[in-house]
Formats: sequence, C-alpha cells, structure tokens
Amino acid sequence: MNRSDWPFVTPGIPDSYFTRNRVPLTKEEIRVLTLAKARLGSGMTVYDIGSGTGSLAIEAARLVGPGQVLAIEVNPVACNLIEENARRFGLRNVQVVAGAAPAALAGLPVPDRIFIGGSGGRLAAIMATCHEVLRPGGIMVVNAVTPETLATALTFGQNRGYQVAALAASLARLEPAGQAHIWRALNPVQIIQLIREK
Amino acid sequence: MNRSDWPFVTPGIPDSYFTRNRVPLTKEEIRVLTLAKARLGSGMTVYDIGSGTGSLAIEAARLVGPGQVLAIEVNPVACNLIEENARRFGLRNVQVVAGAAPAALAGLPVPDRIFIGGSGGRLAAIMATCHEVLRPGGIMVVNAVTPETLATALTFGQNRGYQVAALAASLARLEPAGQAHIWRALNPVQIIQLIREK
Amino acid sequence: MNRSDWPFVTPGIPDSYFTRNRVPLTKEEIRVLTLAKARLGSGMTVYDIGSGTGSLAIEAARLVGPGQVLAIEVNPVACNLIEENARRFGLRNVQVVAGAAPAALAGLPVPDRIFIGGSGGRLAAIMATCHEVLRPGGIMVVNAVTPETLATALTFGQNRGYQVAALAASLARLEPAGQAHIWRALNPVQIIQLIREK
Amino acid sequence: MNRSDWPFVTPGIPDSYFTRNRVPLTKEEIRVLTLAKARLGSGMTVYDIGSGTGSLAIEAARLVGPGQVLAIEVNPVACNLIEENARRFGLRNVQVVAGAAPAALAGLPVPDRIFIGGSGGRLAAIMATCHEVLRPGGIMVVNAVTPETLATALTFGQNRGYQVAALAASLARLEPAGQAHIWRALNPVQIIQLIREK
Repeated sequence: MNRSDWPFVTPGIPDSYFTRNRVPLTKEEIRVLTLAKARLGSGMTVYDIGSGTGSLAIEAARLVGPGQVLAIEVNPVACNLIEENARRFGLRNVQVVAGAAPAALAGLPVPDRIFIGGSGGRLAAIMATCHEVLRPGGIMVVNAVTPETLATALTFGQNRGYQVAALAASLARLEPAGQAHIWRALNPVQIIQLIREK
Repeated sequence: MNRSDWPFVTPGIPDSYFTRNRVPLTKEEIRVLTLAKARLGSGMTVYDIGSGTGSLAIEAARLVGPGQVLAIEVNPVACNLIEENARRFGLRNVQVVAGAAPAALAGLPVPDRIFIGGSGGRLAAIMATCHEVLRPGGIMVVNAVTPETLATALTFGQNRGYQVAALAASLARLEPAGQAHIWRALNPVQIIQLIREK
Repeated sequence: MNRSDWPFVTPGIPDSYFTRNRVPLTKEEIRVLTLAKARLGSGMTVYDIGSGTGSLAIEAARLVGPGQVLAIEVNPVACNLIEENARRFGLRNVQVVAGAAPAALAGLPVPDRIFIGGSGGRLAAIMATCHEVLRPGGIMVVNAVTPETLATALTFGQNRGYQVAALAASLARLEPAGQAHIWRALNPVQIIQLIREK
Repeated sequence: MNRSDWPFVTPGIPDSYFTRNRVPLTKEEIRVLTLAKARLGSGMTVYDIGSGTGSLAIEAARLVGPGQVLAIEVNPVACNLIEENARRFGLRNVQVVAGAAPAALAGLPVPDRIFIGGSGGRLAAIMATCHEVLRPGGIMVVNAVTPETLATALTFGQNRGYQVAALAASLARLEPAGQAHIWRALNPVQIIQLIREK
C-alpha cells in the first residue's frame, strides 16, 4: 500500500490520488467548492452520505481532525475503496458505515455538517432524517447532478426554515492536445447549501 | 440510401441525422449558434473549412440555396461522409473540395461567408488567405476549442480591422438516468465572429 | 419610426435592434437556441406566451410567414413595445393578445408551436391549457431561469407523455475592455423542449 | 472597527464580509478554487499581485500562518482597504506593498506561491520577474478574465518549462426572486496553475 501525501492546508487533492475502480468520484474542483460551502471547523462531526470513493470524506477528515467523518455508503465495493483511500492518506478519523441512508443513519453521533452526494432516489427521506439530528447552526450541502435533486433540496430547505443558497458550476479543464490544448467540460453540478437556524 | 428529411426553416438538425464514423461533428446547438453568427443570406457563397462530417455545411446549404457551400476537408474519409450526408438531405449545392487549406482554397469562387472549424495548426495562414478573397461586408466565423485558436482569431481580427465579437458557450444536455435526468456537458466552444468593413 | 432591416435567413437579430424600455428581452443567443428547439416551419401558428419586448415573436414571425405569431403579454407597456418592434421590422403577422395566460388564450387559433417565456407563477396552469389545444406533433419550448420553472416543465412533460429534452446554456460574450477584452456572462437559461406525440 | 470572525478551516469567506468601495473583489467561489490550485502550506511566503480588496490575501494569510502574505497593489484606495480588511479579521501577517509590479517586487522575501490577479497590461513582465524569484517546486496561479491574459500565462508556462494546467469556471448563484429563485451568473474566470520543477 502506497502512502499518499497531501502536505497542504488547502483542499483539492487531485482525482488521480484516489483509487477509484469505476465508483463515482467527486471531481477535485467540485470537492473544493463543496467543502467550502460546508464551512468545516476543527473537531466537527461530519456525515458523508453516498460517499462513493470517499474522496470528499477524506478531504473533510483532514480538515476537521480531531473530529471525525462518517462515510455512509451502500455499495460494498465502494466501502472497501473508502477504507483503502483513507489508509493511503494515513487517516484514522474516517469511519465507514455500510448501509443505505436513511436507515443506516440510526444511532450515529450527532452531526455538525452533512454532505449528501448520492441518495439512490430517497433524498427527501434522507433529508428528513438528517433534519432530526443536525445541530442548530449546522449545515447540509447537497451535490445535485439532476434537476430532481435540486428541486427536492430547495423545497426541503424552504419548508424547514433553512437559509438556502445554491451554486451552479460549469467547469472545464484544459488538456494537452497535440501542440495545443483543448477544453474538456466536467458535467455541471449544483451545490445546495442549507444552513439551519441557531 | 435513406433520405433524411428536415422540413423546418430553423437550423438545428439533430446530431443523429448525420452519418459520422468517428469524424468530428459540430454539435447541434453549437451549429445553430455558429450559423446565426454568420448571418447567412439567400444566394450566398459559403466556405466551410475543416468541414468534418459536413453537418455545418449541410445546414448552411439548406439556408443559402440557390447559393452554394464549398466544404474544404483534408481527410478522405470525411470527404466521403460530407457527400453521403449531403445526398441524404437531397442537397446539390454542397461541393466537396478535397485538400488542406489554405492551398485548397486557390481558384474557388469568391466567398460571402467563411466558417473555420478545423485548421490543423495552420489557422493564421488560412485566415490570411481568406482575407484576400472575402467580400467587403463579409463574415468569418471561427469555432475554437483551444485557447490558441481563440487568441489567433482575435489577433487576426484586430490587426486586419475587422469588427470582432465572440461568444463562449458552456452547454449541457439533459439525459435520462433511471427515473431521473442527468446533465451532460458538451465541451466548451468559443465562437468568434469577424465582420469585414464594407 | 425607423425601419430595422434584417435581410438574413438565419435568426439572431442583435439585442440593440429592439426597443426595450426595461422590459425583459430574450438575449440574441438564447433566442437563436430557443427558435431552433421549436423547429419552426413555414405557415405555422405560434404562441409566444409572456412575450416581453416581442423579440422572440418577431424572429419567429420572420420565419413562419405566411403563418402568424400570437404574442400574449399582460403588461400594457410591453404590449406597445411588441407592436412598435413588429412595425420596425415591417411584420404584419405578429398579433398582440393583451392579457394574462391561461385566460387570454381562450378562442385563439390552434397552435403548432408554443413558446413560454414568462408565466407569472402560473406555469402549470398555462401548460395544462396549452395541452388542450396544441396539435399532435406540436412542440412547446419553455425558457427557464429558475429551478422551479425547470421542475414544473419537466414534470408536465413526463406526466403528459411528451418527448422531453432540455438544454442548459451558460453563455458569455467578449466585450472590449481597454486594449484587451473581457468575458461578460449572460445569466444561465434552461431551454426545455416538449414534443407531443403525433 | 468591527472584528469579522471566520472560525472555519475551509476558505470561502462570503463577499459581504469584506469592505469593498468599488475596488475589484475576487468572488468567494473563485477565491476558493484559486486557493486550492495554489496548494498552500503552513509557513509559506505568498505574493498576491494586484490584490484589490485583499480578499484573496486575507484568506491565504489565515491558511499559511505563521507564513506571510505580501499584497502588492498600485491603487492607494485599495491599499487602505487591504489593511482595513486584514485588521477586521485580526490578521498580522498581511503586508501591503504599495506600488506597481514588477518594480514593486524588488527586495521582497523569496516566495513559495504567487497569485496574479491584476496586472495592468504588464503580465509578461510580471511573470518574468516572478520567475527569477519563485522557489523550485513553487506555484503561480493566474486568474484570467480576458483571453489575452490566458494566452500570455499559457505561453509563459510552456516556454519556461512549468507544469501547466487551467480551469475555466462558469458559475452562477441562486438568488431569491419573489416566491421563486433565479440563477445569476458570475463572469467566467480562467484559473491557470503553473507548477515550477523542483
């Protein structure tokens, strides 16, 4: 097992540092924006629901230590990947919770921050369960790649009295192409920030 | 041979109507914006340099008839595709010019409009040659997917006294994904419009 | 009154050709994409609901003649603008219908195409009424600048059995800035295309 | 003087936390991406050339302490703003260097990281001077809002043997609009990352 070093204080670990095996990966730049919208603090407890490769969980764990990140993920292959990736970065504060939210959330420590990346079509139920446990002043950040997710997250936030904001990110990376460069688009992501009243 | 019908007055033929065989295809929505920036008129003579599948040439030919479109293309496979695609739409005013610009432009009819899609690294030379023949009041439209193409086209336009405008298009299409939809990005394209003084 | 000439067969009349007076204007490039998604044909009857300055109605009227465009608009100032703009382009096939949709749609000719730009919060009701009259094979195109509009249009299309597609357009125009140029973004628009079964 | 608190470990201080007075402000989300591309580390020395309101300098100073940020800025009004904003966040490791780069860079401590936001048309000269002092393994990050800046930064990086990457960011924020929300675009920014060989 290779140890991956990321000796920097800023998030934004390159995608290639993570083992992936076709499991969904939150792209570096989207991860950076998502983490910023969560306003992480030292010592916080963080859920990462639908954690995939764990790239977001790992970046968060680096930032909130001695706090911890609970990576909730239903796919067993992905659960192994999260553990492997956490080991590569020498992180002991990422705990994998195998199972599907919202059921898998039962009994977990009270969260300060919640990321929701994948929801398997149960987003409304997941958000309702999260609402029961999120601390006052806590923040949920939802990453949407579909209009349905965006609409559900906005409706939830408005109905429950959250302070709602959202960012639409259309990003492209410059890649070498012969002697020139070509712009390659990332798929658009909408990042919804929901801040609970204190 | 199947006849493809596009009975509409607006451009925007779906990508799937064209035979492609891995040859570069200007995507429907980029085609529509590119055609608009060229301000086509009935009876015009149009060059399409680096024509690829000929999708842009074919849309232009439908609009400028009885004018004609000269599709300049160096790849023999693509030259055949352009002819096949033109036949499918029943168009007789698309003429394929096999060869590499700028050399292949010698002796062609005087153009009112010039599209430059592919340039094989010879963009500056192509634009200089086009400048020798373009009518006063004529328009060149360059599609750039690299910063180098954008820079070359802007510099050309400014040095030669053209009226320069450009559009950056970051587009995404909604595609079905299970019971929901997902946004899929097209690669960004910059469309540079260069209007020659009358 | 000045006569504005647009002697071209492609849509994409510059924004500055329209009298505006702070009434919402569909920007040139969004207009071009919207018209393409409507697949206009000669002789068609077109509704433009929430017509604003009438820029979309006027471009459509140029393309569908001898067909006609019914510009439905509730704001009296905007109604006058539409008439003024239609006169400037010498168009006699734009008919202003003063009033709020869906009520104002009663008794109008059967439409082949329907644009919905502004809905004043009554989008679902407007779409339901449009569904009662739209010809088989007809097309509705909705321009959304809010997630709520996007969600409503998608839900409508799916529930009523339309073929649904959508485009997200993040566009920017290059503007002179001293000796250089600067990219100025247009606000993002989502264009939803709903094709009714034949 | 009000003290602004930002008790979080992630960057992304809201724009409204900074005093601005019409001086250019790097928007929150662009700041977050720019900081990530610089890969900041504790103890680093950072230049922020064309610092404007100092928002980027202030975020960097929070992250690199006990390192320091040198905010180079030619506009005296902006110099005062940077100092005022640094005081509001209780930062003592932001040093304002009044003057125009590259001349103003003479005699400054050797940098690990260099941000270039504004260049007043002297970008090539500024980058050449930065190249003389940047540590091996150091990183420059250029924020471009014009094609000219992008082209200059790419050419510099390639000619001098840097590892070159770039990101094009088309972002939009959701803003309340009556009972709905509307997407408001930020102007596109290109972020160029230039990593020097070790």
